[in-house]
Parts: sequence; C-alpha cells; structure tokens
Amino acid sequence: MREVDLNSDLGESFGNYSLGMDKEVLKYVSSANIACAWHAGDPLIMDETVKLAKANKVSIGAHPGFLDLMGFGRRNISVNQKELRAYVLYQLGALNAFARANNTKLNHVKAHGAMYNMAVKDKSLALGIAQAIYDFDKDLILLGLAKSQMIEAAKEVGLKYASEVFADRAYNDDGSLVSRSLPNSVIDDEKVAIKRVIKMVKENQVLSINGNIVNLEVDSICVHGDNPKAVEFAKDIRLALEKENIKIKAISE
Amino acid sequence: MREVDLNSDLGESFGNYSLGMDKEVLKYVSSANIACAWHAGDPLIMDETVKLAKANKVSIGAHPGFLDLMGFGRRNISVNQKELRAYVLYQLGALNAFARANNTKLNHVKAHGAMYNMAVKDKSLALGIAQAIYDFDKDLILLGLAKSQMIEAAKEVGLKYASEVFADRAYNDDGSLVSRSLPNSVIDDEKVAIKRVIKMVKENQVLSINGNIVNLEVDSICVHGDNPKAVEFAKDIRLALEKENIKIKAISE
Amino acid sequence: MREVDLNSDLGESFGNYSLGMDKEVLKYVSSANIACAWHAGDPLIMDETVKLAKANKVSIGAHPGFLDLMGFGRRNISVNQKELRAYVLYQLGALNAFARANNTKLNHVKAHGAMYNMAVKDKSLALGIAQAIYDFDKDLILLGLAKSQMIEAAKEVGLKYASEVFADRAYNDDGSLVSRSLPNSVIDDEKVAIKRVIKMVKENQVLSINGNIVNLEVDSICVHGDNPKAVEFAKDIRLALEKENIKIKAISE
Amino acid sequence: MREVDLNSDLGESFGNYSLGMDKEVLKYVSSANIACAWHAGDPLIMDETVKLAKANKVSIGAHPGFLDLMGFGRRNISVNQKELRAYVLYQLGALNAFARANNTKLNHVKAHGAMYNMAVKDKSLALGIAQAIYDFDKDLILLGLAKSQMIEAAKEVGLKYASEVFADRAYNDDGSLVSRSLPNSVIDDEKVAIKRVIKMVKENQVLSINGNIVNLEVDSICVHGDNPKAVEFAKDIRLALEKENIKIKAISE
Repeated sequence: MREVDLNSDLGESFGNYSLGMDKEVLKYVSSANIACAWHAGDPLIMDETVKLAKANKVSIGAHPGFLDLMGFGRRNISVNQKELRAYVLYQLGALNAFARANNTKLNHVKAHGAMYNMAVKDKSLALGIAQAIYDFDKDLILLGLAKSQMIEAAKEVGLKYASEVFADRAYNDDGSLVSRSLPNSVIDDEKVAIKRVIKMVKENQVLSINGNIVNLEVDSICVHGDNPKAVEFAKDIRLALEKENIKIKAISE
Repeated sequence: MREVDLNSDLGESFGNYSLGMDKEVLKYVSSANIACAWHAGDPLIMDETVKLAKANKVSIGAHPGFLDLMGFGRRNISVNQKELRAYVLYQLGALNAFARANNTKLNHVKAHGAMYNMAVKDKSLALGIAQAIYDFDKDLILLGLAKSQMIEAAKEVGLKYASEVFADRAYNDDGSLVSRSLPNSVIDDEKVAIKRVIKMVKENQVLSINGNIVNLEVDSICVHGDNPKAVEFAKDIRLALEKENIKIKAISE
Repeated sequence: MREVDLNSDLGESFGNYSLGMDKEVLKYVSSANIACAWHAGDPLIMDETVKLAKANKVSIGAHPGFLDLMGFGRRNISVNQKELRAYVLYQLGALNAFARANNTKLNHVKAHGAMYNMAVKDKSLALGIAQAIYDFDKDLILLGLAKSQMIEAAKEVGLKYASEVFADRAYNDDGSLVSRSLPNSVIDDEKVAIKRVIKMVKENQVLSINGNIVNLEVDSICVHGDNPKAVEFAKDIRLALEKENIKIKAISE
Repeated sequence: MREVDLNSDLGESFGNYSLGMDKEVLKYVSSANIACAWHAGDPLIMDETVKLAKANKVSIGAHPGFLDLMGFGRRNISVNQKELRAYVLYQLGALNAFARANNTKLNHVKAHGAMYNMAVKDKSLALGIAQAIYDFDKDLILLGLAKSQMIEAAKEVGLKYASEVFADRAYNDDGSLVSRSLPNSVIDDEKVAIKRVIKMVKENQVLSINGNIVNLEVDSICVHGDNPKAVEFAKDIRLALEKENIKIKAISE
C-alpha cells in the first residue's frame, strides 16, 4: 500500500499577533513544521504548538528561517555556509527544548521561506543546513524539495531525507518549481491540483509546464493552513488520497 | 580538602561587536556561563565559545537573559512565570545544540543580569527558571545567589543547585547583596575582597555591611573577564585560593 | 458648544501580521495615534496609515512604545529618563518622516502601553516623554491620562497637553484608573459606559469606584479598533455624543 | 582653489558595545555619516554622536542601513524599491529628530554597507533611496559612489548629489570598485593610496586595475575610524591634501 506524508507550517503566530488555523489543519496533516522564533513564532507559541501537535499525534519537526521577522523569513539574506549551519543549529536546539519539556521529540527539519528557496539551488547553503542537522542529531530527517540541492546535501552528509512536492505549483523540466513571478506558476483549480498530487504519489511523476514527464520522489506533500480555503484544500487532498488507498503517514514513521 | 568553583560570564560578543577577554579568563575559571543570543551572543559566537570552553576543560553552562540586546539584559522586564519558563527553555535548548554539535554537554544554568536579580527576590519567577531547567534536563544544576529565592525554587522543584557568592560585593544581614546604588556596596580593595572570599569559602560566613555574621553556602565564586584588571583579579583569586589549599573545581564535578 | 476628541491607536500591524480594523475606526475618530515600529507597526505600515488618516481627515499623532515587539509594548521595562527621552525622540522623528513625505504633519504624541502606564505615575519618566516632545517640536500636544504625571510634566516643560479619559474603565478617587487586575475595573455594559462618557464630557466629572465625585479635564476619549465590537462601540460613542450636541473635533484643531 | 570633503561613518556603537574612535576621527573629517539604529547605533548614541559632530563643526548626515544588527548591515537582503524607500524615510526621520533636538540639521544621506552596495548597481533600489530623501527634504544631498546608479538616481529624482571615492580601493574600467574578493582590490600601501587620492581630487581621474584612465567626479573621500591605524590614515590624507592646497570642506557648504 502506497503511503505519503502531509506536512504544514505551524506555530507562526507571534506575541500579540495571530496567524494560521493551526488547530484545524492539524486534523489533516501527519507532520508539523514548527517555527522557531526567528522568522515567526515565539517561545510561548512554540510550547503551545508542540503540545497541540503531540495531542493530535502529528509528527514534530523544526522549521528554521532567517532572523527577519519583518520580512517573515521570505527575503533572501546573503549568508554563508558557516553562518547558516549555526543559525539552523540554534533554532533546532530551541525547538528541541520544547519537545523535551513536553516529553516528545523532533523527527524532521524543513527550512522556511527564503532559506528553503536559497538552499534548493545552492549546494553550499544546503550543506550548511544538512550539516547542522547531522551535528545536532543524525537521526533527524531533512525534508526538502524533491530533486533539489537539499536532497543532494543530505545524501552527501549521510542524513536521512524526504522529498517534498507541491500540489499547487507548476514544475520545470528539471524538477524545480516554476517561479511565482511567471505565468501559470500556480495551479488555481483544486481539482486539477488534486489529480496531479495523486499522479505524483502513485507514479512518482509530474508533467512539467512544458508537457514533459519529470520523474521525482514523493515522500511528503506541502499543504497550508493560513486561511479557511487552504484548510479545506488540505482536507480535500487528504480525502482524495485516502480514497485512492494511499495512507497518510508521517515521514518519521 | 575544601573545593570551590570559579564561574564567569562568557560569549557576550555580538556580530561585529567584541566584548570580553574570553580566552584569558578561561585560564582561571572552572565554569563558563555562555550567553544564548538574547541579551548578548549570537549563534556563531555560541559555537566558538563552547569550543573554547571545551578546549580549556571548563564546564559549560547556559546563561539565559531577557530579549533586550539594547539594554544588555540588565533592565527589569515585567514577565510572568509562564513566559520566563518559556524564555529559559528556549535559550537552554539553543545553547545545548552547540554543546551537542561539539560533542560536549551543558552542566549548569545561571540567569543573567535583570533576570537573575528579579529571580533573587521573586519566588514565582525563580520557579519559572527552575521549572524550565527541570523540564529540559533534571540533571542540570541551577547556579544562583546563595540564600536567594532561586535556591529555594531549585529545592522546591527538586533540582540540583549551587550557591554563588561575590568577592567584590557587600552583603546585607539577610545574605542579599547591598544595592549598587548604595555607598560601600562594592569592595574596591582587591586584598580585602580576596580575604573575604577565602573566609567565605573556608567558614561559609561573611560579615555583613552592618558587621554581623551571615551564614551562607559557598559553591561558586563569580569573577569577571571584561577587562584586563578583571582578568588579573580572577587570576589573583584563583592563586590565593590555591595557596590556601582550596581546590578550584567545577560545580558539575 | 462642547467639543471633544476621539482618539484611537492605529497602524499596529507588522510585516506579515495584520491587526486592527484601521479603515473602519478611522470613520469615527478625530485623532489617530500611529505606532512607530518599536512595539508595533513597520515603515510600510506607518506610511500607509499616515496616508489613510490623512485621507479620512483624521489628525495624526505619534504613538511611541517600548522596543518589545514580543510583548507588544505592554510590559514595564526599567528605563531612566534620559533613555526614555531618546526613545521617544527617535520614534517621533521616524513617524514625522512619513508625515512629511505625505505632505501632512504630526499634531500630538501619546505614549503606548507600559510606557504610558509607567509615566502616569512616575514624574521623572513623564518628564522624559515631555522633554522629547518639546525638544522635537514645541507645538506638538502631549496626550496623556487626565490628572496624571504626564499632564504635570507637560505643564512643567511648557508643552501643550490634552487630558484623556476612558469610557470603559473605573476610576479611583484620585483620578487614576482602577487596575485591570481588580474586580469591576472594566465597565462591560456599553450603555453605562456611554452615559459615563457623556457625563464626563459635559460635567468634567466622573464617579469613582467608591462612589465619590472626581473632577477631571476631558479633552479626548480613547476608543479601540481591534475588533468589530470595539469599532461598533466607537461608532455608538460618537453618535451618542453628537446626539448630545457635543462636537467631535481633533485636539489639534 | 580645489576643495574636497572627507566623510566617515560614525555612531556605530550599540548599547553595551563600543565601536569606533569617533572622537578622534571627528578631528579630521568634514562630514559624519551617523548610523540610525538599524544596522548599528541606538537612540542614546545617535544623540551623543550628533552632539559630538556639532561640537566639532562637522556636517551631519544620515547613514541608513538594513535592519540586520547581527550582520552589521553588510549582508544583502532582497528588498524592493517601495520597502527600501520606507526604510530610508524611517531612518532619516529618526536621525533628524536628534538633529532638531540639538538645534542643528541634517545635510546629507549616505546608505550603509549592503544597502549602498546593492544601490550602486541596481537603479530601482537607488531610486528607492533617492525618492525617500527627496520626499523627506529635497535640500538634502545624496552621497553615493562616483559614477554609480545612486548618482543616476539622484539626477533622475532631481536631488543634489555628491560623488564619493575610496582612497584604498582599486577601480574597474567602468568606475566601479574591484570586488574585495579579488586580488589587489585593496591598496595596502598608504603612500600609494594618498598619491591616488591627490590625483583623483586634482585631475578627476584614477587609473583602473587594468591601467586605464577612469574619469570620475570627486566630491568626497571616504575614510574610516575603526582603529588607531585608520584614524592615522585619515589624518595623513587630510594633511597631504592640505599640503597640496586642497581645502577640506563639507559637501553641504
């Protein structure tokens, strides 16, 4: 029986500011990427989110990002490998403290926003992330974009990894995502998106924006919980996958 | 044979800013309280300082403070117990990541600046710190002011603790430090200060500013490494203690 | 004809985080206190909020707070007068840049949260705020709690001032607000609150929590725009005041 | 008689951290670029630095940078024109408050670090800076790298500008600076550097790294005050220029 993970970014509220429908989306996903108070989140929210994920039996991972709260970690910052390794180590450790305090543990790490996007293409930065994870706990899984430099870096470092795909994004022939600044980069039709996801999971293939077959590993699907529509979409993907006898299961299991 | 620990705050540089003579003072102390990037320090400096302490065979502890870089963690901020617990957990975890990455471990925790001073008197806040440490790792030692609420909180939570004294500060009859805003609160004469330290270590007693005997436990002496004079003083204290056949030994040993 | 100002805190969103129904509440108030990116707000939001206030013909004021985004400026921080003066100057200047860029100007200053609450009681801090305003532009109006140290400080410095009252808060006999931690400190019944406001504006009097008459100046009423109910309340207060032939007019007019 | 400005970055200390020999270098320069508490500096230091520059009769300018204290504003951050305009406006306004409070005024603006380097090549970002300055005060002078996009942006916006050159840096044929990552990008020999400076000021020419003549305007020379050697170099440049009958004079005069 085919299995796949559904992951979502959680714990992105901050202080007096609320963001995301964490309680809702936790009903549908199997892995939670929890913000570590650099690009979003704060210590109280990290504690609450770990508790909430545990209560929902959702596997917990760290979601480190750049120290850019004003930009929500979505803006490229020119860091080097050594800096990036230290930034990821710091955030892994911080989230791990809340896992320990709640008698649970981290299972995976997924970089956020600009850190993710930069490491997709830049092997040196991807190695900074992979090395941080390895140095902290070699049993953690690096969750990264399928076919990206993050997956290559995990292999090189000797780390377990999981390949992530996106239901609502168009792909280039090399397996990279079509830039959001280009036309047709986002698939708005949910039915089309769900069909693509099922094909990806069943066949490890997706049609590129040019109509070519792209082979890729599919361990986890990224879904969002920012708004009611996103949560509805997460639910629909889960139901559609289960209808196809695909089991939703955390990458850590 | 009598033993005592010498502890110092380290890793307080930040980004482009240098502070403290870490390499020098590490020659004389047995325990290092390493800043966790809230009131001082940054991830690169945390990594370097852990390496440096390990290389000098100095026991490593976390030195959490308030998120107030502009005030260097020295300004009271009105937080509650729950917030303080989360802030300490976050910082313990972050520093622990660098200990793990360097194949070493944390042994103690000492709050910094205003967090320390507030918890000296406020049992509720002291419990926030103690609970964070206990929830993270019940084998860690809380290093706090002798006779303060921090020591009481450690006892209540069931945590190991160590009592800290100051060589250069006057004491009130109840064992609290005379406020720096009052006259004669700081002992400028190094010879007098060293005599007091030796008496404290040997007899577990100090004379209060009113001339009364104060009984107190003495597990660790705080020394500074901010400037050449402070490092010289740290060295002189160490030599004077050793001359009295008092062994300098980390509280964790 | 009696006149009074309605003021509200605006521009409290930050980066990716939205807060407050600014567009709605601007329909009902005459003065906007705009956050200056320390406790809330960011430069883009400051620019937008100034534009929005100007478009609604609402008088613009600065709303400086502590540099504590995580605590939304609501936590006391132990600063001294000199520091506070510099912090207020910085924030006044920053907001003024957006006023200039939008061909409008600042008319008043109201401290936020903990900065406001501390200065209510602490003359030295109140003078720090008043001096900053005076040094920046002696024609600006200090908006502060009626009968508080902020009003005294404005008088001492030679600054124009306006006395603020709260519709939904109980008062002590000395004109201070009953602490939120005490019972009956907040008046939940909107009709009661509106009656109190009208009495305050017409008679410059309010009944204290002990049933005694408190005389106080009433130049401005604070209303909120955080949620639909708060906006509705602001609208209701405005309508009730107008029904009593009380004109809503900015303190700067 | 030929005239030229000497400018230096000042006010880069922060909280408990000291940086730069401001008092020394102020003896030799005619323009001070004062940090605005984003990449360096804080409100107290801004106030002190404005006072110090005024006391030394040195012309005051704002030195805005990215909100990246950990990276000292030296790391590229992917911002757009609108964001950059708002960030510069914010910082100009903040520094202007301290100028007003000290009965003096801003005369120029020079972007810091990565903001400067990005705007050298990116016209859109350069326009963001120029537009911010223009919208704040159209009489301020933009100080930017000679022949760079910043100068072009100032012309386009209708702003006064001044062209800056570097004594100790090699130039490419197009007038851009040779990247520090390349060999021979920095001129270590002070005598050679001073000769180049004199030639630049007298002839508006510099020899590129390829030995070709580069024509460039020379309104201001950048000098540093980070360490005793840098201050000594600043002094030597001043003396050498004066010996050649070149008058040191602020760009604002």
